Amino acid sequence: MELKGRDIISIKDFTREEVDHILKTAGKVDHILGENLRPLSGKFMGLLFFEPSTRTRLSFEAAMKRMGGGVIGFSEPAVSSVKKGETLADTVRTVENYADILVIRHPLEGSAKLAADFASIPVINAGSGAEEHPTQAFLDLYTIFKEKGSVDGLNIGILGDLRYGRTVHSLTYALSLYDVNLYLVSPPELRIRKEVLQAVRNRLRVKEFSRIEDVMPELDVLYVTRIQRERFPDPGEYERIKGAYRIDKAALEKAKEDLIVMHPLPRVDEIQPEVDETKHALYFKQVRYGLITRMALLGLVLGAF
Amino acid sequence: MELKGRDIISIKDFTREEVDHILKTAGKVDHILGENLRPLSGKFMGLLFFEPSTRTRLSFEAAMKRMGGGVIGFSEPAVSSVKKGETLADTVRTVENYADILVIRHPLEGSAKLAADFASIPVINAGSGAEEHPTQAFLDLYTIFKEKGSVDGLNIGILGDLRYGRTVHSLTYALSLYDVNLYLVSPPELRIRKEVLQAVRNRLRVKEFSRIEDVMPELDVLYVTRIQRERFPDPGEYERIKGAYRIDKAALEKAKEDLIVMHPLPRVDEIQPEVDETKHALYFKQVRYGLITRMALLGLVLGAF
Amino acid sequence: MELKGRDIISIKDFTREEVDHILKTAGKVDHILGENLRPLSGKFMGLLFFEPSTRTRLSFEAAMKRMGGGVIGFSEPAVSSVKKGETLADTVRTVENYADILVIRHPLEGSAKLAADFASIPVINAGSGAEEHPTQAFLDLYTIFKEKGSVDGLNIGILGDLRYGRTVHSLTYALSLYDVNLYLVSPPELRIRKEVLQAVRNRLRVKEFSRIEDVMPELDVLYVTRIQRERFPDPGEYERIKGAYRIDKAALEKAKEDLIVMHPLPRVDEIQPEVDETKHALYFKQVRYGLITRMALLGLVLGAF
Repeated sequence: MELKGRDIISIKDFTREEVDHILKTAGKVDHILGENLRPLSGKFMGLLFFEPSTRTRLSFEAAMKRMGGGVIGFSEPAVSSVKKGETLADTVRTVENYADILVIRHPLEGSAKLAADFASIPVINAGSGAEEHPTQAFLDLYTIFKEKGSVDGLNIGILGDLRYGRTVHSLTYALSLYDVNLYLVSPPELRIRKEVLQAVRNRLRVKEFSRIEDVMPELDVLYVTRIQRERFPDPGEYERIKGAYRIDKAALEKAKEDLIVMHPLPRVDEIQPEVDETKHALYFKQVRYGLITRMALLGLVLGAF
Repeated sequence: MELKGRDIISIKDFTREEVDHILKTAGKVDHILGENLRPLSGKFMGLLFFEPSTRTRLSFEAAMKRMGGGVIGFSEPAVSSVKKGETLADTVRTVENYADILVIRHPLEGSAKLAADFASIPVINAGSGAEEHPTQAFLDLYTIFKEKGSVDGLNIGILGDLRYGRTVHSLTYALSLYDVNLYLVSPPELRIRKEVLQAVRNRLRVKEFSRIEDVMPELDVLYVTRIQRERFPDPGEYERIKGAYRIDKAALEKAKEDLIVMHPLPRVDEIQPEVDETKHALYFKQVRYGLITRMALLGLVLGAF
Repeated sequence: MELKGRDIISIKDFTREEVDHILKTAGKVDHILGENLRPLSGKFMGLLFFEPSTRTRLSFEAAMKRMGGGVIGFSEPAVSSVKKGETLADTVRTVENYADILVIRHPLEGSAKLAADFASIPVINAGSGAEEHPTQAFLDLYTIFKEKGSVDGLNIGILGDLRYGRTVHSLTYALSLYDVNLYLVSPPELRIRKEVLQAVRNRLRVKEFSRIEDVMPELDVLYVTRIQRERFPDPGEYERIKGAYRIDKAALEKAKEDLIVMHPLPRVDEIQPEVDETKHALYFKQVRYGLITRMALLGLVLGAF
């Protein structure tokens, strides 16, 4: 299998076989993480972040640098030529001269695809609009794979804002490559979009719920996301429901012994701090798995593995 | 010839012999660009960008890092001690302790010179006010040299805002070291400044025009710059003329087969996207030549070549 | 003595023996500074700067990179997830996955301590609120040690805003580990806080003054800090006194031949530029000693020395 030179724009562009190969490569990186790795020495990443994001930016930077590579770029458009009216296509055709791979985050859907069309070097989508965040999906899969030994056969719940979260969309598409039972739990206002559901219905067994307590005992994995107040036209409605989508120790009482709780972070209060010390809490370890997964992806795309 | 330890403040400080040596060194770097070069390992660049500039900053950063060196600094004054009222002289005398070379961009004319006066390490001017941008001139020369084999004997046109563009000033001084015919094409309001013209008149054959079609068939090189709406007191006047300073395929119909079209970028609409796919378009390749030229300059000043 | 893995939160956490060991290590780094050192190759620093600071940030970055290590992080909270409401504890538990050591600057007192409590890797306090700035104290001590041969037995004056400057507090605690005479010179409104004085009274011989001319002839070291206009409820009062806390050549006429004048920088006008060229001026060299001291601290904490 050859991933060298590939763009990573959408999780939908990858076959099950390719995803498995990526997870297996991440597993190898996991074993040598502490070492002074330099397979990407002399290679450079161009970071084009048109939207702020500490977590994703630092994760990509750390991944590149921990492989011996270098990073250049910008992390907010105010400091860039965009202010002078430059098009995305021109920015891409400029920065690609300085780098061996581009990582782009942009508020508009389709932006990463556009960048890839113009670039002559590989492009990784680090979040484009509300639609896709493929490397987050890869790291989520790797987290499940690593902790559970396999993704197939699991009962996986996703809780929170399923309508607007790009993480949720990418993860749902990713899970549709596997044999899983998917439990979607959200307020009625924030149900997953019909087109996402239709695209995965044939391959995933999906059930939708409004209350987490109805499915908690079944779950092997609970993936929590934020519910944002501004999604509700009526603030009173938000206040009424928010407690039902907050995970605390009490909510976990009926969970399986080995349930893992994941979260793309940052969280606000949808997972209470008291959960951090339980054996279920996996969200900080998930950050480490994110670093590992991105190291694997960079290594594969740049031909180091 | 010894360029080690030299400041690069103004193109006017360099002899023809020195410029030729720089272009020749860039030619050598061009041949080994893909390799993992580390002649500046253990050397550090201090970037003092008091004005935002993605393109120039990334170009210098990439040049330093691709030679194995490191970079520290800031890319907007808001994040710096300048907010606390520190003078430029103090900032320079601080940061020079962390670095082996300083690269400074500042909105005031004379700022780079001042920095060089206070610094005990070499200083490179990355754009000071409306007056000078010497490394842009070096990369422009290298682009012409590389594509045409020689700068001497060419018919070179510069189009657009010749009054305010620092790129234009530095390039005009640079070309005056060579035997060229210079065609300056601009609206009457944006003619080149008299002092620039007087300084180069003796050595350059200069003609001024208002319409690009009058000179297009003669040109070997066409250098396009932006015309900014805000330069015109009367917006109606801008609307009336702007079309005449916009290069599209039709405008190129009467051009020589091997005309090259250059632009310092970013462009807005003064070169239409349809030109990008023609054999004349050289502006994105020019970005790559910029990287190469700056690698050569850094290597020379820091004694690696 | 083992400093590997230690947090550096407060100067009060260190014994005289440990501080001496740090100064001795800095002395060793001083001798090899020009060389291409790489003992921290493969190690990474996570910079969490919730408050802007060019000088301190660049000093830490340069220290890490000059030892062969890498740096990731952010230098203003606006670009970070903090905007999304993330707690400091969560930010720490995220970024520690990407790094081997954290360096944090935060406007709130106690923030660095909190970060250290949550982090599983060493944390260095790069300034927390008005209370502590321990690495500044180490570099101040190293400057005195290096220039005077020893800290013990010296007459040391601190001038300016002794009430609000975190530099002053940390330095005073640091000096209390040595046998020195401390002369505190400030306007009555900006006297040092009682709790600082009480904590060091037993070990330091402290005298307080309002006029620098009363102590100048005694001093071996004069440490100048800024007096900020906004500390005075009555602007007229500030105008009246500011001249008395400004060091110029005249003020230095009665000083000892080998008095050294230090300043944490940035300065505004509390040391006049005419002093820069005198043999007393040590503040720019102090910046270099800061780099060296931080290289020593990073090497010790990360186990490279």
